[in-house]
Amino acid sequence: MSIPEDEYRVQTDAGPNGQEPSTVNLDLTRQELRRGTRAGDRYVRVVRPYEHLFQRVGPGYLRATEEVSEPKTRFGRILFKLRHILIGQPLPTSAEIHERLTKVKALAIFASDAMSSVAYATEEILFVLILAGTGALGYSVYISLAIGLLLFVVAYSYRQTVFSYPSGGGSYIVSKDNLGVMPGLIAAAALMIDYVLTVSVSVSAGTAALTSAFEVLRPYTVIIALFFVLIMVVGNLRGIRESGNIFALPTYIFIVSLAVLIVVGLFRYFIGLPPVEAVHYAPPPAQDTVSVWLILTAFSAGSVAASGTEAISNGVPAFKPPESKNAATTLTVMAVILGVFFLGISFLASHFNLIPSEETIISQLGRVIFGKSWFYYLVQFSTMAILVLAANTSFADFPRLSSILARDGFMPHQFAFRGDRLAFSYGIVALGIIAGLLIFLFQGDTHLLIPLYAVGVFLAFTMSQAGMVLHHRRVREAGWQRNMIINGFGALLTFIVLAIAIVTKFIHGAWVTVLLIALLVVLFLLVSRHYRAVATQLALQVKGKPMPPPRQVLLVPLGDLNLPSARALSFAHSLSRQVNAIYVTNTPEAAKDLAEKLKEFAPDVKLVVLESPFRSLLDPLLSYIDALHQEDKDVYITVVIPEFVIAHWWERLLHNGTAERLKRALKSRPNVAVVDLPYQLHS
Amino acid sequence: MSIPEDEYRVQTDAGPNGQEPSTVNLDLTRQELRRGTRAGDRYVRVVRPYEHLFQRVGPGYLRATEEVSEPKTRFGRILFKLRHILIGQPLPTSAEIHERLTKVKALAIFASDAMSSVAYATEEILFVLILAGTGALGYSVYISLAIGLLLFVVAYSYRQTVFSYPSGGGSYIVSKDNLGVMPGLIAAAALMIDYVLTVSVSVSAGTAALTSAFEVLRPYTVIIALFFVLIMVVGNLRGIRESGNIFALPTYIFIVSLAVLIVVGLFRYFIGLPPVEAVHYAPPPAQDTVSVWLILTAFSAGSVAASGTEAISNGVPAFKPPESKNAATTLTVMAVILGVFFLGISFLASHFNLIPSEETIISQLGRVIFGKSWFYYLVQFSTMAILVLAANTSFADFPRLSSILARDGFMPHQFAFRGDRLAFSYGIVALGIIAGLLIFLFQGDTHLLIPLYAVGVFLAFTMSQAGMVLHHRRVREAGWQRNMIINGFGALLTFIVLAIAIVTKFIHGAWVTVLLIALLVVLFLLVSRHYRAVATQLALQVKGKPMPPPRQVLLVPLGDLNLPSARALSFAHSLSRQVNAIYVTNTPEAAKDLAEKLKEFAPDVKLVVLESPFRSLLDPLLSYIDALHQEDKDVYITVVIPEFVIAHWWERLLHNGTAERLKRALKSRPNVAVVDLPYQLHS
Repeated sequence: MSIPEDEYRVQTDAGPNGQEPSTVNLDLTRQELRRGTRAGDRYVRVVRPYEHLFQRVGPGYLRATEEVSEPKTRFGRILFKLRHILIGQPLPTSAEIHERLTKVKALAIFASDAMSSVAYATEEILFVLILAGTGALGYSVYISLAIGLLLFVVAYSYRQTVFSYPSGGGSYIVSKDNLGVMPGLIAAAALMIDYVLTVSVSVSAGTAALTSAFEVLRPYTVIIALFFVLIMVVGNLRGIRESGNIFALPTYIFIVSLAVLIVVGLFRYFIGLPPVEAVHYAPPPAQDTVSVWLILTAFSAGSVAASGTEAISNGVPAFKPPESKNAATTLTVMAVILGVFFLGISFLASHFNLIPSEETIISQLGRVIFGKSWFYYLVQFSTMAILVLAANTSFADFPRLSSILARDGFMPHQFAFRGDRLAFSYGIVALGIIAGLLIFLFQGDTHLLIPLYAVGVFLAFTMSQAGMVLHHRRVREAGWQRNMIINGFGALLTFIVLAIAIVTKFIHGAWVTVLLIALLVVLFLLVSRHYRAVATQLALQVKGKPMPPPRQVLLVPLGDLNLPSARALSFAHSLSRQVNAIYVTNTPEAAKDLAEKLKEFAPDVKLVVLESPFRSLLDPLLSYIDALHQEDKDVYITVVIPEFVIAHWWERLLHNGTAERLKRALKSRPNVAVVDLPYQLHS
Repeated sequence: MSIPEDEYRVQTDAGPNGQEPSTVNLDLTRQELRRGTRAGDRYVRVVRPYEHLFQRVGPGYLRATEEVSEPKTRFGRILFKLRHILIGQPLPTSAEIHERLTKVKALAIFASDAMSSVAYATEEILFVLILAGTGALGYSVYISLAIGLLLFVVAYSYRQTVFSYPSGGGSYIVSKDNLGVMPGLIAAAALMIDYVLTVSVSVSAGTAALTSAFEVLRPYTVIIALFFVLIMVVGNLRGIRESGNIFALPTYIFIVSLAVLIVVGLFRYFIGLPPVEAVHYAPPPAQDTVSVWLILTAFSAGSVAASGTEAISNGVPAFKPPESKNAATTLTVMAVILGVFFLGISFLASHFNLIPSEETIISQLGRVIFGKSWFYYLVQFSTMAILVLAANTSFADFPRLSSILARDGFMPHQFAFRGDRLAFSYGIVALGIIAGLLIFLFQGDTHLLIPLYAVGVFLAFTMSQAGMVLHHRRVREAGWQRNMIINGFGALLTFIVLAIAIVTKFIHGAWVTVLLIALLVVLFLLVSRHYRAVATQLALQVKGKPMPPPRQVLLVPLGDLNLPSARALSFAHSLSRQVNAIYVTNTPEAAKDLAEKLKEFAPDVKLVVLESPFRSLLDPLLSYIDALHQEDKDVYITVVIPEFVIAHWWERLLHNGTAERLKRALKSRPNVAVVDLPYQLHS
């Protein structure tokens, strides 16, 4: 008899009591099959009916194909199709491509967050200064210079991180590594809030770029913004973050068009040409005078321009080798472009005497310099595009940070799961919901959202830089003192900005951020405590011997002697010689009836009748089990529940669901095993 | 060694593999204990720690005490207390007292429904006649006479039923017995709608009696009516129908006060005294002329006076012996009082030229005859009281009919259950909800509800009388021909009234009733078909041999090697020698890890790894089980699921609930047993 390799069989040993056979085996090697033959087993040739489902990799090792997830019902298949259309075909884990990035592509991917902030940073400064009248607007250039300096220091500090953490050094990792768990969690909380606000602020600002160009769209601001968020959620569930190409084009269009805008603007200003289009917004009446407080407030409002600088330090491993060097270069290029753009826009806005209003400053500049020409629209669209892309980086960063926190046990495990398309679905959906909620609550007003923003950004910066200081002291690499000084200065400076931001913006919304950070940290700790408690309780000394089989009492609650209960009794017999049938009733006659039937049908089953004068079905049974446990708390009570499963959900109204309720009640009792023997009724 | 009688022990046989012991037994006689001793068992004296829970009646027979139902958690205890306060202490089934009723009490209990209809029947006639102007109101006396005649015939027919069905002959039982199942169900549907409408109409009319006396309450009509319904629901859940005494007083006050009202009214009318208080309502403009159609419409509107006549025939067994004779006498007395009251009120209303309006006719009569004296208020309050009591009889009848239908398999079994206080809780609550809904929809307007009413009443009458005709022909008791003629005449007459009611009121709402009756009958049949289908599928030939224990494949899905899974493995071992641990993963390294741990910890367990490249946990496992079944569809697959149960519900957010989802998915698969091994975590 020849048995082809890798064929499966039904193995049919005679059972211990001479009954019919016992084991079906899906996985046997050729040798095992031969041995089986010699032992006198009977073989049934089976031509692997399930090879579309499993691919045999080795003994005891099967690999599932995509087909195992295919739904079996018609409705399920429709849902499945819809999901495919929306999210795309599922991807196997092995499909995670680490396509390394060139500096040009990397700049496009990592810089959109940082560079996009020029779209609103100048405006935020002007909005503060205008409180002291139009005369105060001139200070914006000096404030921008200070922020440019800050940017330089931050970027330079992060270059250090890029070299020290070639495998990616987000604020959470750097802080946790060097400062400890609590500072790490504080940095993580700050970052998470930062990411959420990046989405809300960038999408709101992108929508403002659009509604500045097309005023008719202004009433639909919130709807447009929420639509952008939805697009990003769906897109990221599909996994668009993997395809870097679509980022490159809008980013470079933005860089070029903004550069042209600034150069032409400066040219027109210096040779004294009049505005192409006159822009007149009436300034609001001055309520304040220029003071140190006002200047500091304006500074902290504009400092959000620095947000997003850390993105490159997170993504070092994505660069082509030499990774750290390429990343550092890209970081420098980004910082320079960002600084130049920011200063340029602030300078032009101030010298063209622009007044902050519902129309964005960039849109006003565009009109002053080019008029509503095609180039103006190009600037607006590319601004909108880069802002939406900036939001999109958060859709990569937030889920990744969540997954790291989940892996470390500070967030629910679900955040570490990858969905069909390898994206961290929970994180993406959670970010979409929270950011959408914020947009809705603040009605898509960038200006109202900004005060919440800076605190998170600079707290994360400070923690990360402080962590780097300790890192250098610990590692003592070549030139560590110099590096320590650089990061120390960065930490000090970002800390000062953080303090300014908290103080000047506290009543305007920064208190919300502070509160949320505290709350998040508490949540992280609670989640972690729970997971640790569970792990401790579940821990097993593997070195010990296998546990002895537990002592058992077998109970079979019966409602009647019918097919399901007869099957339950015979099943119970296969587990133990002593089977106790339990019958709860309020009519003693019915008990007598059942006892007689049972004596005839299964004389070796012991019947225990629990009369229930108060007609409760469950309570006596549960009390009986508790009483058994009171007798001997180590005994294992196995309850075999015969249950019939109805064919249609609405039929549930016609049955009591006693089995369901019994299972629920038994679940929280220790040392009780429930054997559910469902008996499927056909319709 | 002496063992006290009825003491329980822990029986400790050595296990089959020489392990520690096996069975805890809560029920052993003295002899069994002795035998046990001789067999060398070790006894542990236990002073019945659970005797507060169970009382031992005989071998294998324990009776639960009330304590088994006592909740164990603090919140549960508070709910339990609240329930006690509202509904009362639970009653054992044996507490069902059959306190036989004297004729005087029986009249009070059974007659309220019928007699209360005098409160609105005259009014309904007048509301129809007024359409042809005030001149037409005089016809009301003749119409009332006709209805009085009808009442006489119906009552006389029911006397027959009382004698033929001494154990209670409701329309459902009489129709089903004699005409067949379908007529029985039609009668049942008609009756159920009748009961619901009795509640809605009587409560609305009772509220009208109150708001007629106190006009300030009129805006709160619906709230007052709903409050009455709520009181009745709670009262009946407590089981107040058992205490007949509270019915007697208001009923007799009503009878006496209404008798006084009518007698004094007739006296004042015949000696020509002027009204004590002038009642002026402007009649609405005449829209119609007096026609046969109008007279028939008025007749069918007034015919609802006959409703409730069948109550006594339902309750024959509650009378003192000789039951049938006493019941018949009570029926006659009731019919006479009802007839006299109805005619008297119609006569007086017509001769005092009362115009139907928002104020009830009885209230108007009271003012005309007595003025707003204390006696007027007595009449109003007793009218209100008897109307509410009438509604209350439906709260006994509806649940009883539901329970009979449920027992016969035409309604969900739940309606046959008795609650804590022996009341049919489901029926009471269902009736309260439906009647309350009707009151809300019709804004407590008796006049709008009446058109729905008559059809149900007379359909049930007709079916019942027709059934009696066949009964007499079948049984051929002494004088059966005469009885057959009486019931035949009753059937004919009620059928004519039914036809009139359907025709004249069809567009005013009778169509709703006809539709509902048809719908209910269809529902009854669907429910019955379902139960019969289930019973057929579950039926067991008890005479056959016990089923052989099923062939088994044992699967233990593992997530990790921890305490719950180790326990699951050892549990599985106690069931079968061949245990298959299943591990689903998307990281092959993790599989290798587990395989090594398992080899050390439980070398005899066979590990099957299902690699899931698409990261789904459940799908590969389910497909694997399906594949096993494709190999051999008779094999029984037992899945032992290690599960840990968290201490707090909110912790669920932190876990995936894989075990829960697996159990749900396996439930509908045939030949799969699920062994749930919950492992309770403490907080």
